[in-house]
Amino acid sequence: MSKTQGISIPKQWCNFLYDFPQYAGQDVPRGVALLTQGTRRVSVVPQQPLSLVTQSNSISEPYHEIPERLLELYSQYRPTPLRRARELERRLGANARIYYKYEGLNVSGSHKLNSALAQAYYYAKAGIQELVTGTGAGQWGTALAYACKLFGLRCTVFMVGASLRQKPQRRAMMELFGATVHESPSDATEVGRKATQKDPERVGSLAIATGEALEVAHGGKRVRFAVGSGENCVLLHQTLIGGEAVEQMGALGEFPDHVVACMGAGSNFGGVGLPFLRAARERERSVRLLAVEPAACPKLTRGLYALDINDFSGTTPINRMYTLGSNYIAPPIFAGGLRYHGTSAFLSAMLADKGFDAMAVPQREALSAGLLFAECEGLLPAPESAHAIAGALDLARKHPGDAPPKVILLNISGHGLFDLSAYEHCRSDTLAPDAPNEALLSESLRHVREFNTRITGASS
Amino acid sequence: MSKTQGISIPKQWCNFLYDFPQYAGQDVPRGVALLTQGTRRVSVVPQQPLSLVTQSNSISEPYHEIPERLLELYSQYRPTPLRRARELERRLGANARIYYKYEGLNVSGSHKLNSALAQAYYYAKAGIQELVTGTGAGQWGTALAYACKLFGLRCTVFMVGASLRQKPQRRAMMELFGATVHESPSDATEVGRKATQKDPERVGSLAIATGEALEVAHGGKRVRFAVGSGENCVLLHQTLIGGEAVEQMGALGEFPDHVVACMGAGSNFGGVGLPFLRAARERERSVRLLAVEPAACPKLTRGLYALDINDFSGTTPINRMYTLGSNYIAPPIFAGGLRYHGTSAFLSAMLADKGFDAMAVPQREALSAGLLFAECEGLLPAPESAHAIAGALDLARKHPGDAPPKVILLNISGHGLFDLSAYEHCRSDTLAPDAPNEALLSESLRHVREFNTRITGASS
Repeated sequence: MSKTQGISIPKQWCNFLYDFPQYAGQDVPRGVALLTQGTRRVSVVPQQPLSLVTQSNSISEPYHEIPERLLELYSQYRPTPLRRARELERRLGANARIYYKYEGLNVSGSHKLNSALAQAYYYAKAGIQELVTGTGAGQWGTALAYACKLFGLRCTVFMVGASLRQKPQRRAMMELFGATVHESPSDATEVGRKATQKDPERVGSLAIATGEALEVAHGGKRVRFAVGSGENCVLLHQTLIGGEAVEQMGALGEFPDHVVACMGAGSNFGGVGLPFLRAARERERSVRLLAVEPAACPKLTRGLYALDINDFSGTTPINRMYTLGSNYIAPPIFAGGLRYHGTSAFLSAMLADKGFDAMAVPQREALSAGLLFAECEGLLPAPESAHAIAGALDLARKHPGDAPPKVILLNISGHGLFDLSAYEHCRSDTLAPDAPNEALLSESLRHVREFNTRITGASS
Repeated sequence: MSKTQGISIPKQWCNFLYDFPQYAGQDVPRGVALLTQGTRRVSVVPQQPLSLVTQSNSISEPYHEIPERLLELYSQYRPTPLRRARELERRLGANARIYYKYEGLNVSGSHKLNSALAQAYYYAKAGIQELVTGTGAGQWGTALAYACKLFGLRCTVFMVGASLRQKPQRRAMMELFGATVHESPSDATEVGRKATQKDPERVGSLAIATGEALEVAHGGKRVRFAVGSGENCVLLHQTLIGGEAVEQMGALGEFPDHVVACMGAGSNFGGVGLPFLRAARERERSVRLLAVEPAACPKLTRGLYALDINDFSGTTPINRMYTLGSNYIAPPIFAGGLRYHGTSAFLSAMLADKGFDAMAVPQREALSAGLLFAECEGLLPAPESAHAIAGALDLARKHPGDAPPKVILLNISGHGLFDLSAYEHCRSDTLAPDAPNEALLSESLRHVREFNTRITGASS
């Protein structure tokens, strides 16, 4: 018998706010709350249970304990595998050792379940009876539907129209677990009807789907909005990924030079990366995180670091973040989970300080990287995760052959089994153009600038 | 950190023929070879490399070593998880501890990759350039397509029509890896054209698809037929499942009273179960294996133990096995991998000696069990694997509450992510009838009886 490493589930979430208190608070100017209804100074989704509010804001403890019941449920699918991509290394012939963590082995098909279980747990404990949410590519919605089923909560999901039509299986999965699913923009909400006027083909965006969910959540007494990414508490729940990976890499005698992940609103990227920043400091090592985004939705590389709203309803807090503006509707790329206009306020503050690296890759490059990975390693990654692979390949290829080998860890956030048409289009070279609509982008960025000028003026 | 068990990949396949030499040989009467072209006494697929022939027939060694290169490739997805189904236990309220092994985490979505890699390895080493096969639900075809891609072989797959139309994603997966896929019965072969006359709607069967593949394989010099199940060498490759599971259960301080798996041609059932028979003898424990088959294709519970052919072309060896006759076409149930008319000769001989238990379950019962498992454990099983779950539930429910708890291990052979419509039909109670066509079944069984009378007469 050849022993593989003994692996474990962390009993605590890694509180990255303890390591970076300077990025914890929102530097939203005083008086902004007067301008926009519902805006708050701290990072809070309306009417969250206290545990989640604390997890999003507290800088005083290095860890948050994971409740027993959640540990039990995490053990249904965790620890997740960490493996070396030997065939990929051979095919590349690059001077690098490439490892990957794989989060696709659970019913949501992605890392999203890590936070869905936690949120359903805390909301159920608080006496809530229904959770409502918006979902892009559908992994978050599936995760929440399953978590709600386990905790006896009703679940309503608004899914971005473009993604729903690409992946009808996602609706089927959510419905199997008893969730009600709307194609967004929908006619069920004010926000949806308004959005449909601007977007008659109902391509949709996560900002719109979120706005619709918020509208529904505000209408009910024991109904709450559950957030899939971006918020600090969600990033916290996702630190399970990095927590396990630090230990798994350690068991192999490795520490990565780079940790690579795709970035939408940031929970996947932060979840795998932030525990490595702490581990590096503790071990006096260095590590660089690389966030990979789609060229179609390039908030990190072409966006503004500015105050902006998170959703189309305007009822969520204003955040300072990298954003393309909530009016920006990205081309309907297959990586629906990366089409969000903004991103985590915490990670944005870190990026503004050059705390990590960011790159944008075109859809074709990402999917080609995903296909190569599948051919070599026998796992078909989600189009989102394929962006991380493209980023890792780029690092490996650029690393000089005579230097010590680069050690790269990348996170495969989910599987691509519902995205076969994406890979078929890639293989047959029939992908639709994915360049941003530059006029729309300029207009949206201009809107953000004006909004910021108005706020600064009003609050000075 | 809560440690989970250290797990490992076996370095050897468990040669069950060493344990049960009495079932190793085929008791095909002398002279049968004269009656049917290509028939042989030993279990041999035409023109297999010597390693595979040895693996199918040798009774002299307790283990077969796994080549280094294969161990490396197995480590891409093995060891596979073994977990306790705690939520399912709670929901049942039964007096049982239920564990499951999960084989769905690889590109084929099932255990099939265990043998596809081995066969591609041995055929590539023997200088073969192309492998041809038949596949039912498509997992075997996908596994072989991926394995061929890794070893630089061409791959041609005949997939059963009914399954291909249920799961077009399977074709897409195989094509991603460069395989050529035919819907069977096809017009590409003599066998296919003949079958289409009897089956104008091209429902198809694995016997027909296999016959088509054999016809193509016989036509080429460096082309061979690869077999997905039933043959002893395939069962041998699959003992990886049971080998790991014995160790994993041991690490948890458990030994199962029952090991439950679905059974088509037997590689999944034998793969998980046979190593436990050896382990039980070594540990002086007892264990019963339970094979679960669909009511639509009840060879184990309603078939004949008789001489029969494996495929529609009549060129494969005659085996004594439990069979419904190769003319039997099962209703197009969603568990396409369990629609094969016959089964492993080795396992049939064992069943005739009451060496394990068998039960048949209707499609609705199997899918309901699968859905319950998904709701509780967060994994959507393949419809095939759902049969094993139904079997395990039956054992757990029947076990008296005042006895020591029953320990049940079941094998989830694959995921059901391409089978959502099966579960939707189950949920909405719109499943098509799955009872066997009794007239067709009687006719097919009569044909088997006549065939056996004719052989016995001719060879006496």
